[in-house]
Amino acid sequence: MLMREELQKRTITEDGQLMLRKADQEQLETVWDRFNAQAPHCGFGELGTCCRNCMQGPCRIDPFGEGATLGACGASGDTIVARNLGRAIAAGTAAHSGHAKHLAHTLLKSAEGKAPDYPIRDEAKLKGVADRLGISTNDKSIEELAKAVARVALEDFSEKETPVAWAATNVTQGRVETFIKHGVVPTGIDSAISELMHRTAYGVDADPINLLMGGVKCALADFAGCHMGTDLADILFGTPKPVTSTANLGVLKTDGVNIALHGHNPVLSDVIAQVASELDEEAKRAGAPEGVNLVGICCTGNETLMRHGIPSATHSVSQELAMLTGAVDAMVVDYQCIMPSLGTLAECNHTKLITTMSIAKIPGADHIEFTEENARETAKEIIRRGIEAFKSRDPKKVNIPPQQSTMVAGFSTEAIVGALAKVDKDDPLKPLIDNIVNGNIQGVCLFAGCNNVRVSQDSGFVSMAKKLAKENVLLLATGCGAGAFARHGLLTSEATQEFGGDGLKAVLTAVGEAAGLNGPLPLVLHMGSCVDNARAADVAVAVANKLGVDLDKLPVVASAPEATTEKAIAIGTWAVAAGLPTHVGVVPPVLGGATVAKVLTDEVKAIFGGYFIVETDPMSAAEKLLEAIKERRKGLGI
Amino acid sequence: MLMREELQKRTITEDGQLMLRKADQEQLETVWDRFNAQAPHCGFGELGTCCRNCMQGPCRIDPFGEGATLGACGASGDTIVARNLGRAIAAGTAAHSGHAKHLAHTLLKSAEGKAPDYPIRDEAKLKGVADRLGISTNDKSIEELAKAVARVALEDFSEKETPVAWAATNVTQGRVETFIKHGVVPTGIDSAISELMHRTAYGVDADPINLLMGGVKCALADFAGCHMGTDLADILFGTPKPVTSTANLGVLKTDGVNIALHGHNPVLSDVIAQVASELDEEAKRAGAPEGVNLVGICCTGNETLMRHGIPSATHSVSQELAMLTGAVDAMVVDYQCIMPSLGTLAECNHTKLITTMSIAKIPGADHIEFTEENARETAKEIIRRGIEAFKSRDPKKVNIPPQQSTMVAGFSTEAIVGALAKVDKDDPLKPLIDNIVNGNIQGVCLFAGCNNVRVSQDSGFVSMAKKLAKENVLLLATGCGAGAFARHGLLTSEATQEFGGDGLKAVLTAVGEAAGLNGPLPLVLHMGSCVDNARAADVAVAVANKLGVDLDKLPVVASAPEATTEKAIAIGTWAVAAGLPTHVGVVPPVLGGATVAKVLTDEVKAIFGGYFIVETDPMSAAEKLLEAIKERRKGLGI
Repeated sequence: MLMREELQKRTITEDGQLMLRKADQEQLETVWDRFNAQAPHCGFGELGTCCRNCMQGPCRIDPFGEGATLGACGASGDTIVARNLGRAIAAGTAAHSGHAKHLAHTLLKSAEGKAPDYPIRDEAKLKGVADRLGISTNDKSIEELAKAVARVALEDFSEKETPVAWAATNVTQGRVETFIKHGVVPTGIDSAISELMHRTAYGVDADPINLLMGGVKCALADFAGCHMGTDLADILFGTPKPVTSTANLGVLKTDGVNIALHGHNPVLSDVIAQVASELDEEAKRAGAPEGVNLVGICCTGNETLMRHGIPSATHSVSQELAMLTGAVDAMVVDYQCIMPSLGTLAECNHTKLITTMSIAKIPGADHIEFTEENARETAKEIIRRGIEAFKSRDPKKVNIPPQQSTMVAGFSTEAIVGALAKVDKDDPLKPLIDNIVNGNIQGVCLFAGCNNVRVSQDSGFVSMAKKLAKENVLLLATGCGAGAFARHGLLTSEATQEFGGDGLKAVLTAVGEAAGLNGPLPLVLHMGSCVDNARAADVAVAVANKLGVDLDKLPVVASAPEATTEKAIAIGTWAVAAGLPTHVGVVPPVLGGATVAKVLTDEVKAIFGGYFIVETDPMSAAEKLLEAIKERRKGLGI
Repeated sequence: MLMREELQKRTITEDGQLMLRKADQEQLETVWDRFNAQAPHCGFGELGTCCRNCMQGPCRIDPFGEGATLGACGASGDTIVARNLGRAIAAGTAAHSGHAKHLAHTLLKSAEGKAPDYPIRDEAKLKGVADRLGISTNDKSIEELAKAVARVALEDFSEKETPVAWAATNVTQGRVETFIKHGVVPTGIDSAISELMHRTAYGVDADPINLLMGGVKCALADFAGCHMGTDLADILFGTPKPVTSTANLGVLKTDGVNIALHGHNPVLSDVIAQVASELDEEAKRAGAPEGVNLVGICCTGNETLMRHGIPSATHSVSQELAMLTGAVDAMVVDYQCIMPSLGTLAECNHTKLITTMSIAKIPGADHIEFTEENARETAKEIIRRGIEAFKSRDPKKVNIPPQQSTMVAGFSTEAIVGALAKVDKDDPLKPLIDNIVNGNIQGVCLFAGCNNVRVSQDSGFVSMAKKLAKENVLLLATGCGAGAFARHGLLTSEATQEFGGDGLKAVLTAVGEAAGLNGPLPLVLHMGSCVDNARAADVAVAVANKLGVDLDKLPVVASAPEATTEKAIAIGTWAVAAGLPTHVGVVPPVLGGATVAKVLTDEVKAIFGGYFIVETDPMSAAEKLLEAIKERRKGLGI
């Protein structure tokens, strides 16, 4: 039997612990069991010194210098670590930008009248993006403008003579100059990925520093992909506004057809959200008095939460636990962070796992190929698959944990600026900047990244946030991080009252009340999914431009206490290049390259201003971020 | 001391053995020592079941089912193997196509008058390529035509609505239909790489078969990259014609400034070849009566051999041995297959290692950044660096092995067709096809791929070729394979006399004499570098079109007995997709996925006609290829 201590080691969420007990009783395997079965983990892999980039290996470098100190080709530990890191950045960039490219195609089809299920829902955002890209807006219809924006987006993937537009137009002028100076300006997203894959191949780049700079170049392409993903989703589905909803597995309904939307891209899930109510009657006829109940998982969940207030069931490492409730009738997935184990769980269960994208199939799943041209029909077919499955749901096997947290999400950049404008209509950033200057707000921390099976779920996020909030740090969150805060009630006014330092509390209260929320803003502002880290970057860029300093001077930091994916590595790298002290709470596979590790955590500061802080203890991590904020404040003379 | 048996295990080349003895005496480390120091190799890595695609691992699958059978996320051994294979294909494609893109830029600069050192040297090839691409040729100047071809080339990297032109226009119509049917048509080279990196990321594609099909799609982009690399190099530097030269380390000169050209892309090395004689006097003044002596290593060596008759010093696994002669004054490298250990060897030595490409630096090397705009100047600066280094060459340390083999290389598709045209001017392919039909030639085998430290250098190539030649198989070769045959005297008329079966000998003699060579064609036809596998594909496509059958019906096979790089994996995959039985003599990291291994070696035959033959014993491999040829002949009723 799973002891309390072991449960605590796995997750600090009560609903999660309940499901883990159930899994244990029913002898169903979860990610934690499989992780334990992998122990002892390969030390070479953990250190990053295992190279499989040709068939003369695999090679590995002995960290104690007692065994092999070089790969067969002569690659050093530093070279191998830098190459592996580069490939991770390339993969992360490919994922984010694949998502963005998908939306660019959707936007183009929308503008060309080929996808009637995708009207332009946010014309103001479209115009704003077009303006930023230097596309003239006055002489064009909305369709023409959408077409122009979509074309610039698609052009950003190809190598060209000019920088990637979505990278160059979304940072400070100072950053642009720094990137040019160090030769890290990407001129195409796909081409940057390709170049990095080339230079990390056998017998190409062997210089660890040169490889790292190649990684930065690709990571800036990742930034572009993230930002494009955010912009285009807003144009197509609306820019998020504050919205109230609920989180935890308690959002599943005993009497509803529960359909979980999982993955990352809103292109299908938003349409499902739009049509779900049309099938309520069918669900009721099938015996579900509450009709169709959509819930979100991972960043697809964040997207539908931000725009439709759809409750968030869970995120990332605990995705299997949603299925273990026995109450999920269909789980619809697009791509990224979807555990293959869901296929097996679905097979042992009444749940239909439905894959929808040609590039992401899973053994054990039903595949319903999604296209924009027939989005509503596909969405309905998927929901009907859930209704059908509901009929074979076994009530005896259903165990929905009671936990439900309320939350306010939907804090896009526009929503934050909108709230600040209620305080100062003419100069919305002024209240924020004044309060940073006067010390009510000491700094800003963006919490991002995943959950990781190595860290008790949410523990890193929650303990760091409480510590920083007490020290008057304004907290932003995206992705699984935002989900963690939702699950633990930190996206509420009550949390601000309970955990905010006096200065922070005063500011959040003033803004919240001015914005008509009848109370303070939430302790943490949920900015969206993991591509939406771009929203947080926008806030920082706006503040920097307003202050007339570059990003690397601001008391702004980032943290991914439970990072997992290659996407997180790409994001962390562009955060550092953007000038942010960036905390990672899981040791990335770089320690086998002493030079690489030193560059990433120290020497890179002299180049970009930002640097990595690797610290697995959340309290120490929070201290280090506070120190970084203090140093920055000192630099600004505030 | 290295025993004779150990030397034989390392290489069958006599010059190589001499240098290995020297390395041993001087306690200098080579790739074989470092390979041995890596033993025992990680079995998980060898089986392909080690996954490091997120920070919840590394995970590994126990091949005996006794330990972990799934990764933490639930990925099976098959999923992990297919993902890793996909990433290797992506990297290989990135390398070949990076090379091709580089040449496309060079061609564009040439056409725009920005790179006067790059005139169009082969207008007929330019017109032929343009024709094939559907670019009208009559209405354009050479510059305009070059610009149009370069633009189509560059467009091939970006995602678009039509198939990659360099893939679609270079295969049979039957192949195009098969590729469309199975959804593996790439619509952009960089975008195919990016898509494969996305689908192999954490939580995306988990279906091994779907992943493999994604790999095929990317491999077809690799085919396009290879073919483009060949076409554009021919346009810029001339299409190779038969040329006589020499091979082995004996091509280095005691009394010359020896400059080794190493890597893959002729963009710099061809210019060095053009200007070298201009610096002969400077070399003589520095004390080298033989002036500047250029020699080639790896595929840069193949490129300069094919077009300038520059001797080939060595290839791939033995690159360090060239430096160990103490007689190489400068080694100039571009990218791919360049061992980082050269940096260390150069530092212990008078040799200047000179890196020239921004994406490929090496600790211990001098970096001279190369651009097309100043190509001749850079080329001269590099040669002068060699002349300077020559002055500090220590004659006491010089040990140049005496071996030198003569060879005839330069068999581009055009050269082969040209030779056949001497037999039948109106229908050049007829003599080849007639002889295949009448059995004088049983089939065709393309030898490609690298040398690999796991195989005694050249042993796989040489023994297989002798066996197949005796059975009247026409032999083509590229890359390190062609180098192996050069080193062992198989690129000669004498070898045809000695090792050819009667039928083959008769055909090679008839064609050779008709072509005015005063003897048979060489036993093996050297078609060029590893991108030039595209040339061999062209021959097969021409024969298939002439016969009115698809590629998967021809008695044509491929073999990479000593494959090493990810590029070789990409090439092998497109060879299989093209319909060829494709032998690999090194076990690729796929055995940990039983389904994947079965698909690649068996089930894929039902889809594409081609399949992998994994066989480490050269004699058995040759038998299996002969069987495949027999089966194909039976299928054709010949």
